Amino acid sequence: MEKFDIHILGCGATLPTTRHFSASQVVNVRDKLFMIDCGEGAQMQLRKTHLKFSRLNHIFISHLHGDHCFGLLGLISTFGLLGRTAGLHIYSPDGLEELFRPLLDAFCHHLPYEVSFHTFEVKKPAVIYEDRSVTVETIPLQHRVPCCGFLFREKPRLNHIIREMVDFYQIPVSWMNRIKNGEDYITPEGEIICNDRLTRPAALPRSYAYCSDTIFDPDIVEQIKGIDLLFHEATFADGESARARETYHTTAAQAAVIACKAEVKQLLLGHFSARYEDETILLREALQEFSETLLAREGMCIAVREVLSQNKP
Amino acid sequence: MEKFDIHILGCGATLPTTRHFSASQVVNVRDKLFMIDCGEGAQMQLRKTHLKFSRLNHIFISHLHGDHCFGLLGLISTFGLLGRTAGLHIYSPDGLEELFRPLLDAFCHHLPYEVSFHTFEVKKPAVIYEDRSVTVETIPLQHRVPCCGFLFREKPRLNHIIREMVDFYQIPVSWMNRIKNGEDYITPEGEIICNDRLTRPAALPRSYAYCSDTIFDPDIVEQIKGIDLLFHEATFADGESARARETYHTTAAQAAVIACKAEVKQLLLGHFSARYEDETILLREALQEFSETLLAREGMCIAVREVLSQNKP
Repeated sequence: MEKFDIHILGCGATLPTTRHFSASQVVNVRDKLFMIDCGEGAQMQLRKTHLKFSRLNHIFISHLHGDHCFGLLGLISTFGLLGRTAGLHIYSPDGLEELFRPLLDAFCHHLPYEVSFHTFEVKKPAVIYEDRSVTVETIPLQHRVPCCGFLFREKPRLNHIIREMVDFYQIPVSWMNRIKNGEDYITPEGEIICNDRLTRPAALPRSYAYCSDTIFDPDIVEQIKGIDLLFHEATFADGESARARETYHTTAAQAAVIACKAEVKQLLLGHFSARYEDETILLREALQEFSETLLAREGMCIAVREVLSQNKP
Repeated sequence: MEKFDIHILGCGATLPTTRHFSASQVVNVRDKLFMIDCGEGAQMQLRKTHLKFSRLNHIFISHLHGDHCFGLLGLISTFGLLGRTAGLHIYSPDGLEELFRPLLDAFCHHLPYEVSFHTFEVKKPAVIYEDRSVTVETIPLQHRVPCCGFLFREKPRLNHIIREMVDFYQIPVSWMNRIKNGEDYITPEGEIICNDRLTRPAALPRSYAYCSDTIFDPDIVEQIKGIDLLFHEATFADGESARARETYHTTAAQAAVIACKAEVKQLLLGHFSARYEDETILLREALQEFSETLLAREGMCIAVREVLSQNKP
C-alpha cells in the first residue's frame, strides 16, 4: 500500500511542557514528506521518526505565531549542515520571509541550498501545491492572526491490472498503460474485452485535513466534507469554552461537532493546552459528539485508512 | 550549604541529535539562576529541571551561532505567557538585539516584561555582572565569530559564628555582624577575645568557568587558574584534530590539557559532535591528560564542590 501517514512531532499548544512539543507534524504521501507547522524542537522530533530529511521539500506554516514557526531556524540550519542541496519551499501567510530572512542571512549564510518563501491568501481556499500524487489546498480558519489549515487530497490512482487476465488474453506490454487508464482491450481479432474484466479498481483517493489554530467555525465543514482523517485543534475542555472563544481556539467537543457535521471518517485531536495533566477529559468530551476520535501524541504515526471503492471510480 | 550547581540542558554541538540538545546550561548560585547559551529546546529542558523560571533573570550568550541562541525566542515568549513581570537581561557579543528584536516585536508584542540586551567586548576579560553573591567575567575565546566564555566567581562568605563560644562569653546580638566580618570581641571588662576563637572560617569561594566554543587556546589558562570546575568544549576526538583546528573547536584531550595547565579541580566536557554514538572515546582521551574529568549529559546537575579553607581567608 502506498503511504499516506501522519507523524505527530508536537501536539502541544503555545506553552511546550515536559509532555508536549509545540505544533509540528509530517505528512508522508508516497514517501514525499510535507511538514505542517514547525514549532521549536521540530527538528529533534523529526530525527526521532527516522524519516529521511532529504525527502522533505515543502513546509506549510498555518499562521505566524511563534509556537508554529520558531523551529524553522534550527531546521533550516541543520539541513544545511547535513549538506542538503535541494531547494526548500515554505508556504505561509504574508510576513514570514520578512521576519526570518535576516536571521537566515546572519546565522545560515553559507547554506548549500535555497530557501524559497511562498505566501498564500487566507480568505479563500486555494490549491497551493500540486504534484502527481497529491494536492494541498488551504482551509481558511478564524484565529487571532491570519491563519489557514491544509487539506491534502491524494490523486486517484490507476486501476490494478489483473495479471491472470493479461496472460489469458496474451495482451502485449504496449497496451498496459492504456488499460490502467481505463481503456478496453481490442484483440488482434477485433474482439473488445471490457476494461473491468481486466482490472481491479484502485482504492479511493485518501484525504487529510489539518485545522489549527481556529475558533469553532462550522464554515469549514463544507470544504472538508467526507475526508478520511481530520486533525482539529482541541485546545480546551468544555469548562474553558469561554476562554476558547476569547482566544480563538476550539474545545474538544466543538472539534468533534465539526468532525460529525463534516462526516469525516476519523478525528485526531491536538494542540492541547498545557493546563491538562493528561487529555482524557478532552477525549471523553469529544467522544460524546463523535465516536471515531483519537488523541494525538508525540511520536504517533497514523496511517490514513484506505477504502476500497465499491465501483469503478 | 549554599547552592552553586550547574544544570546541563544541552551539551550537543551544532547538530542536535536524539541524544543531545544544543548548548544551554543553568548556573544556580544561591538560588539565583543564570543561563549560559540558549540553543533550541532550552525552555523544554529547563522545564524538566523543575527550577523556578522566575529565578532566572540573566542569560549569557557566548557567541552568535544558531545552536547557542535559537532557543531565546521560545524562552522569551514562554516567560511572557507565564506572566513574568521582572526584566530579563541578555548579555552577548554585538549584534544579537538587532537580529532578534524584530522577531520579539512581531511574535511577542504583548510581553508583560522587558527584555534588555547588553553587549560585551570580546577581546579583553571584563566583569559583566555582579551582585552580592557572585561576579561574572568574560573569558575571551578564539572561534570563527566573536566569542567569550564566562567565569563565575562566588564572593567570599562571612565566617560562621561558633554558637557555644557566643554563649560562653555571653556576646550580645549587636556584635554578631562585626564578629562575622572578622572583628575580635571586646568584653565589657575590656578583655579581647580573638575572632578565630569565636568563628569557623567559611568555605572558600567557589568558581566555575564555561569555555565554549573555542579552538585549543592556552591563553585562557591564566584567567581560569585554580578554579573549581571548568566546562570546556570537547567537540572532537584526537582523530579529528585537524577538523577541530579548521573549525575552531577543541579535542577532548586538548580540553584536558587546558584543565591540567590551569590546575582546575574538575573538568566537565561538553559540546559533543553528533558523529559520536557515545562519548566514551572523548572521556578516555581526556583522562589520559587529566584524571578529574567528567562527561556532561542532558539533565545532569553537578555541584561545584566546596573546599574548606585551611586558614582564615
